Amino acid sequence: MAKNTNIRISLPAVCFVWQIAMIILFGVFIRYDEESDTHWIEHRRKKNISTNLENDFYYRYPSFQDVHVMIFVGFGFLMTFLKRYSFGGVGFNFLIAAFGIQWALLMQGWFHHLDEHDWKIKIGVENLINADFCVASCLIAYGACLGKVSPVQLMVLTLFGVTLFAVEEYIILELLHAKDAGGSMVIHTFGAYYGLTISWVLYRPLLSQSKHLQGSVYHSDVFAMIGTLFLWMYWPSFNSAIADHGDGQHRAVINTYLALASSVLTTFAISSISQNNGKLDMVHIQNATLAGGVAMGTASEFMITPYGSLIVGFCSGIVSTFGYLFLTPFMEKTLKIQDTCGIHNLHAMPGVIGGIVGAITAASASESVYGQEGLINTFDFKDAVANRTVNIQGGYQAAALFVAIAFGLVGGALVGGILKLPIWGDPADVNCFDDDVYWEVIVCAICNKYKITEITKFLIISCKYFL
Amino acid sequence: MAKNTNIRISLPAVCFVWQIAMIILFGVFIRYDEESDTHWIEHRRKKNISTNLENDFYYRYPSFQDVHVMIFVGFGFLMTFLKRYSFGGVGFNFLIAAFGIQWALLMQGWFHHLDEHDWKIKIGVENLINADFCVASCLIAYGACLGKVSPVQLMVLTLFGVTLFAVEEYIILELLHAKDAGGSMVIHTFGAYYGLTISWVLYRPLLSQSKHLQGSVYHSDVFAMIGTLFLWMYWPSFNSAIADHGDGQHRAVINTYLALASSVLTTFAISSISQNNGKLDMVHIQNATLAGGVAMGTASEFMITPYGSLIVGFCSGIVSTFGYLFLTPFMEKTLKIQDTCGIHNLHAMPGVIGGIVGAITAASASESVYGQEGLINTFDFKDAVANRTVNIQGGYQAAALFVAIAFGLVGGALVGGILKLPIWGDPADVNCFDDDVYWEVIVCAICNKYKITEITKFLIISCKYFL
Amino acid sequence: MAKNTNIRISLPAVCFVWQIAMIILFGVFIRYDEESDTHWIEHRRKKNISTNLENDFYYRYPSFQDVHVMIFVGFGFLMTFLKRYSFGGVGFNFLIAAFGIQWALLMQGWFHHLDEHDWKIKIGVENLINADFCVASCLIAYGACLGKVSPVQLMVLTLFGVTLFAVEEYIILELLHAKDAGGSMVIHTFGAYYGLTISWVLYRPLLSQSKHLQGSVYHSDVFAMIGTLFLWMYWPSFNSAIADHGDGQHRAVINTYLALASSVLTTFAISSISQNNGKLDMVHIQNATLAGGVAMGTASEFMITPYGSLIVGFCSGIVSTFGYLFLTPFMEKTLKIQDTCGIHNLHAMPGVIGGIVGAITAASASESVYGQEGLINTFDFKDAVANRTVNIQGGYQAAALFVAIAFGLVGGALVGGILKLPIWGDPADVNCFDDDVYWEVIVCAICNKYKITEITKFLIISCKYFL
Repeated sequence: MAKNTNIRISLPAVCFVWQIAMIILFGVFIRYDEESDTHWIEHRRKKNISTNLENDFYYRYPSFQDVHVMIFVGFGFLMTFLKRYSFGGVGFNFLIAAFGIQWALLMQGWFHHLDEHDWKIKIGVENLINADFCVASCLIAYGACLGKVSPVQLMVLTLFGVTLFAVEEYIILELLHAKDAGGSMVIHTFGAYYGLTISWVLYRPLLSQSKHLQGSVYHSDVFAMIGTLFLWMYWPSFNSAIADHGDGQHRAVINTYLALASSVLTTFAISSISQNNGKLDMVHIQNATLAGGVAMGTASEFMITPYGSLIVGFCSGIVSTFGYLFLTPFMEKTLKIQDTCGIHNLHAMPGVIGGIVGAITAASASESVYGQEGLINTFDFKDAVANRTVNIQGGYQAAALFVAIAFGLVGGALVGGILKLPIWGDPADVNCFDDDVYWEVIVCAICNKYKITEITKFLIISCKYFL
Repeated sequence: MAKNTNIRISLPAVCFVWQIAMIILFGVFIRYDEESDTHWIEHRRKKNISTNLENDFYYRYPSFQDVHVMIFVGFGFLMTFLKRYSFGGVGFNFLIAAFGIQWALLMQGWFHHLDEHDWKIKIGVENLINADFCVASCLIAYGACLGKVSPVQLMVLTLFGVTLFAVEEYIILELLHAKDAGGSMVIHTFGAYYGLTISWVLYRPLLSQSKHLQGSVYHSDVFAMIGTLFLWMYWPSFNSAIADHGDGQHRAVINTYLALASSVLTTFAISSISQNNGKLDMVHIQNATLAGGVAMGTASEFMITPYGSLIVGFCSGIVSTFGYLFLTPFMEKTLKIQDTCGIHNLHAMPGVIGGIVGAITAASASESVYGQEGLINTFDFKDAVANRTVNIQGGYQAAALFVAIAFGLVGGALVGGILKLPIWGDPADVNCFDDDVYWEVIVCAICNKYKITEITKFLIISCKYFL
Repeated sequence: MAKNTNIRISLPAVCFVWQIAMIILFGVFIRYDEESDTHWIEHRRKKNISTNLENDFYYRYPSFQDVHVMIFVGFGFLMTFLKRYSFGGVGFNFLIAAFGIQWALLMQGWFHHLDEHDWKIKIGVENLINADFCVASCLIAYGACLGKVSPVQLMVLTLFGVTLFAVEEYIILELLHAKDAGGSMVIHTFGAYYGLTISWVLYRPLLSQSKHLQGSVYHSDVFAMIGTLFLWMYWPSFNSAIADHGDGQHRAVINTYLALASSVLTTFAISSISQNNGKLDMVHIQNATLAGGVAMGTASEFMITPYGSLIVGFCSGIVSTFGYLFLTPFMEKTLKIQDTCGIHNLHAMPGVIGGIVGAITAASASESVYGQEGLINTFDFKDAVANRTVNIQGGYQAAALFVAIAFGLVGGALVGGILKLPIWGDPADVNCFDDDVYWEVIVCAICNKYKITEITKFLIISCKYFL
């Protein structure tokens, strides 16, 4: 049964209408904050700030740019691994991230930064980072659906994903006062369960009809390594981008750097041990090597110690690779969850590990290790939570993990239901993982335009045109 | 009629002689400035600078590196999209940029930074950024000529392009005292009209002879996306790199980030609406998504407001995509301008938009929005222009736009005339867009070395060697 | 004679055991330093540090991230140029770098940063940079062995390489008190001779059996350009990352930027002049353009003057390209050194040039150029070496170069001997440069699975699946 994948009306309509809505909402709500406004010079004088360098821009801009690269090149190229879905991987990632960051500035602004006097949201570089973070959760969810949904569906997924994210983030960071600098829970756990649940709702029993397109070719695997490496290299910036100035950012970088290095070795080990002759599998190398970064998201700011970071990376690399080996096939067969990129292995499990590690590390924090001021600074034990103990903090961290999972599952079920409506132009099972559905692709002359008897002629043509 | 594309004498001669000339001129003119000289420590003491961080290096180096990536990877990979001209795209971009930045340090130094006491040019990190900026205009011009000129011609194009740029920049920034932090006018408008005029002078009536090489293949389009994304992600750094310390850089980043996000959505919309079934065209996605960054070049530092930035991106994405759909074919047929990369759509039109937006935004600036000091700081209403009003500033901004266009047109006509001389080793029409002319390329065994009757044998060979 | 390339036991064993050893050793030895510890706030107060920005993190983190990209994407993608060894190039680079940085933190810590009171190594961002630097020497050595060794051998190469590096570095920087900010000697000269000697010990007389895989294809050359460009663009960060705060970092960037630009032009010149019709060779462009960065490693911090930097780049570009043209074939035939990536041309010779340039520049330094304080700061003429003259410093610089070479040659011979043992799972001569040995690769249907008579059928299949 053929499906109508014509998106000539729906995609432009969604893009135009939503972009115009963004303009109007930005006009009503969004303004520069005191550090990006021309009144900064007066603000400096009033607050007795001695140098322009104290503008938060100089603390955070290098990290922001690294995060920005992770969002667009990291996630984008990681999803180019399919032999015939590279355009969709990097292209739709581009589209939904560009929309999502705008919507995130609004949603996060309303929840976190609404000025009570003039009802405006004042934005600066930290807001841009947070918008990128928020969008990351939707890109993770995209990973489960890669190749099986239309760009219109992805826009809807992002609209609701960002909305859910902002609420979940508000509950976790503001109400529970949990810490999650690199978003193991807020970003990765939520995003992964959101995507997996959507994929479960959209289950395609006949997906094997496009089995021949569901793998990689040599060059597409190399493209995907661009994504892997930029994610891997810049993950220390991700986990430190909104950490506390000074030792907070510094320590988050060290912890993440070490966890990532450690998970590379265990990924190679498990990948090799699982195959004949010890041959390595590119899918593992492209993904599970990153598990250490995910798992270090919550505890990156804490005094988890360098060897603690190595242990976290060690375990998460193993868990993630085993996930690709055993869990993904199991989930597809038994649980009816088709997870194209294996986000359960890269984001869900390491995210949960990260949340647990964070809770334990927080609960076992002590003044002897952190110093009195250090403990207060690290966990922000001020104002309403001035009297909170580390044990209670650990409990709240654990609660935060459940909030993230719950938001992912419930939100995914709801949005999955919406996406199941037959109006979004999604591809038929036989056309999944094929760029030809949504992109103008130059089709190979041999298989589509000519017949077998003309093969000799094609060889010349194809060689000249397509090699 | 075969052309002589042998550049075995001319290319090495140009490279050697010009590089030696650079060494001599650098020896005579170029020195470290006070912030990169070992006397910095004394300078600090004398000026009572409390910390090394006040060295401009720490304000600008992260932005510089981002701009550097845009010049070499951004522009370079954006031009790898042709199926058989990826070497020339990224390789010649590399060559002319490496030459151009040296020549730019001299030319810009003579015009802007010549020390009146010792007739030396003192360079620091801001000069490096400006040199990269200057070269960008020549790389834009290269985009119009991609595949149709020899590397020797490109070196000539760059030599004169940098020279013209320095004069034009001097007139616009120093004489007219116009503001153009991200170079909508100075870089993009000038570079685009310079390249388009050259391409017009070098019109090739029989270019359709190499039509079969004038498209992309699947993988080359993915390569080009590397260029697109690094340009897109780092454009906030481009527009803020030489903006004022503090709020200036901060605001330029926010404005550019938003304009770019907005133009992604309108590009996808127009691209989809223009094709059967709403299929997207990679050419649009690779290029028009960047229009917001170009159009935000002049006003990036101004208080254009976040929603103003979104509107600018919105419009420029639409204009740029329509350009690819209708204007490029029209220009080729009617105006005899062959524009390989469509720089008219990506740089010329959004650059002009940027200039106009800048003039309007400047003219409508007010003390109530900017604050008294903020207004003076943003527009540098000091010294000779201390009494300039914003209305007059707006007029000068508009005048600057005409200067940029005029320099592009006249300069392009002159340089085009020089490049028309039959001594530069440019390719015949049938050999355009083919790396085989200037690069040692491993030629596919099937089409060039063997005959059709041997096809079966080739298949084995070709498969083993070339797939 | 078939070789056993089964690494299903050895690779996982090495990865697991060594990673566990790292965890234990980190647990015993590695702690956060005062700038990444939560006690930073107390440290600030005690030392009267006015702002978090004085945390070394803000001086060095942007450079660190650039260096990090060079190590993983730069070196990794530079080694993807072979038509069928891209996985091994970028993948094994990833593995050994991830292991090496951990081991380097320990080895360099023991030699340079062991706290005498508690016998702990306190790490911060500068240690991360130094670990990346250390690993670079092993990645250079990998370049000589690319395609001919097993990942287990590479792990052994890295284990000993890092160990040797730490000792060599200690002798050069601490005992000889030589300066080598960008590591012309410490990193490049040592790493190159280490790798070349290993390659000499592992000489394969019948390597021509895999000649058909020892070249590039079109797309793999474009992939390699990603590596080249990220190395080229970020080299200024490499040479300035651990330079002195303030003018030291600033000047190192300018010098490296200029040297690199200059070597691009001479590389193009020599590449063109050496071939019929002046056609350029991608191998030269990918490699020799970087020689200026290598050669500027030692003197980058010195007052070598901008035109001096251009001259260094000029010469090293020429020398390096000539190396590829004449020396590599000569070394392979006569000296029995098979150097896959030509590291002798890119790292050994420019590294030696860099060492010599550094010695001369140091010996000719003067107070009139540097200023009294500047001279002391630049060469750290304090404490034990307070009375050293620049001439003596020049002598020590020269001595350092010999130490680097000696460590490379002797260390390489020893490690080469170890790697020659028939237990490491290295490939047979006929299987060199083939990813199929250590990676799960989708094999082309045409050549491996079907016979010639079935060719027509394959065409359809292969076209659909593999193009």
